Amino acid sequence: MAFPINDRKPARTPSRKTGDERWEELLDVSARMFAQYGYAATSLQQIADELGILKGSFYYYIRSKSDLLFEVIRSVYWDGLERFQAYSKEEGTGLEVLERAIIGHAAFLVEHLTATTVYLHEFERLEPEQREKLTGHDFRQLMSDLIRRGQDDGSVRADVDPTLSALAIVGSINWIYRWYRSGSRAPEEIGREFARIYVRGLTAH
Amino acid sequence: MAFPINDRKPARTPSRKTGDERWEELLDVSARMFAQYGYAATSLQQIADELGILKGSFYYYIRSKSDLLFEVIRSVYWDGLERFQAYSKEEGTGLEVLERAIIGHAAFLVEHLTATTVYLHEFERLEPEQREKLTGHDFRQLMSDLIRRGQDDGSVRADVDPTLSALAIVGSINWIYRWYRSGSRAPEEIGREFARIYVRGLTAH
Repeated sequence: MAFPINDRKPARTPSRKTGDERWEELLDVSARMFAQYGYAATSLQQIADELGILKGSFYYYIRSKSDLLFEVIRSVYWDGLERFQAYSKEEGTGLEVLERAIIGHAAFLVEHLTATTVYLHEFERLEPEQREKLTGHDFRQLMSDLIRRGQDDGSVRADVDPTLSALAIVGSINWIYRWYRSGSRAPEEIGREFARIYVRGLTAH
Repeated sequence: MAFPINDRKPARTPSRKTGDERWEELLDVSARMFAQYGYAATSLQQIADELGILKGSFYYYIRSKSDLLFEVIRSVYWDGLERFQAYSKEEGTGLEVLERAIIGHAAFLVEHLTATTVYLHEFERLEPEQREKLTGHDFRQLMSDLIRRGQDDGSVRADVDPTLSALAIVGSINWIYRWYRSGSRAPEEIGREFARIYVRGLTAH
């Protein structure tokens, strides 16, 4: 999978490490400002001021502000997806794997709260061609696949609607970014409580 | 409860009805544009252009764009809250009332999708003093009160965390605005499926 933005990362030269570090810092600061003030209300000038650099230096890495948004979202999206897909390959009944996936996905969201906030709140502000690169493998689909797997192996009730129940679960987890404040709950505690409700709500037994 | 914006509505004069109608149209168009393009990316000038009026005419009704955001949110917030509070006063076990509240609240959200989108997506963009007017009676609190009521009357499991389970439910329902497309599902169907999962997940029996 190739992303055009990646191609514009600095080439391997003696100063490469510094370039990579600058790039990471640029992404971190952008994510924080997009999460706090919103994407539309944050200008490249404000990000440059926060970093103490000239706005012109951005164009070494990106063409526009929307490239920054894409990079912040792309990065957390693929990390989260990779982790989630690993659950899907685990052994166990659909319900057992679903339980682990709910706990793990909620924890992932809290552990990457700034970037997931930008992903979940600003996804629609990506350009259409950017959005296309990040769809087709969504979490709702993976979640409903697990529910169907549970229905096939008899661990999940047959009368459950896999799509709507996946949307209920994904909604609960995604909504965390709207209320979670650092330290309010342990990430694992949130996921475990959610998983407990959903396992009881979906179990065939 | 007095809201300063209301006080600036046109006084009772022969032309009052037309003024009210213009005000409603202004709110509808603002809600639609805030929902579609985002609050920060929508200017008063764009709203004026959409309405085919001069931007200056706004200042008869509002002081600033944030007054418009507040009015859109305030209106749907209080309607939803009033409806929700009515459930809380109904007879039945906590779990029975919770079931009705989930179905009704999900339906309300879908029926008022444009305004709830603005409420749920742009709440943090209100001025602090505007936000203060709309807190202290939130849906999460009402939801967790119903869960506690169920624990008191024995209909809800005692080992459920009322706050986290309320947040799971509210998250599922609030997230609807992120995926719902007109006609994709009947509003009642969504609420009923969510309620079924949660009732099974929380029941003591």
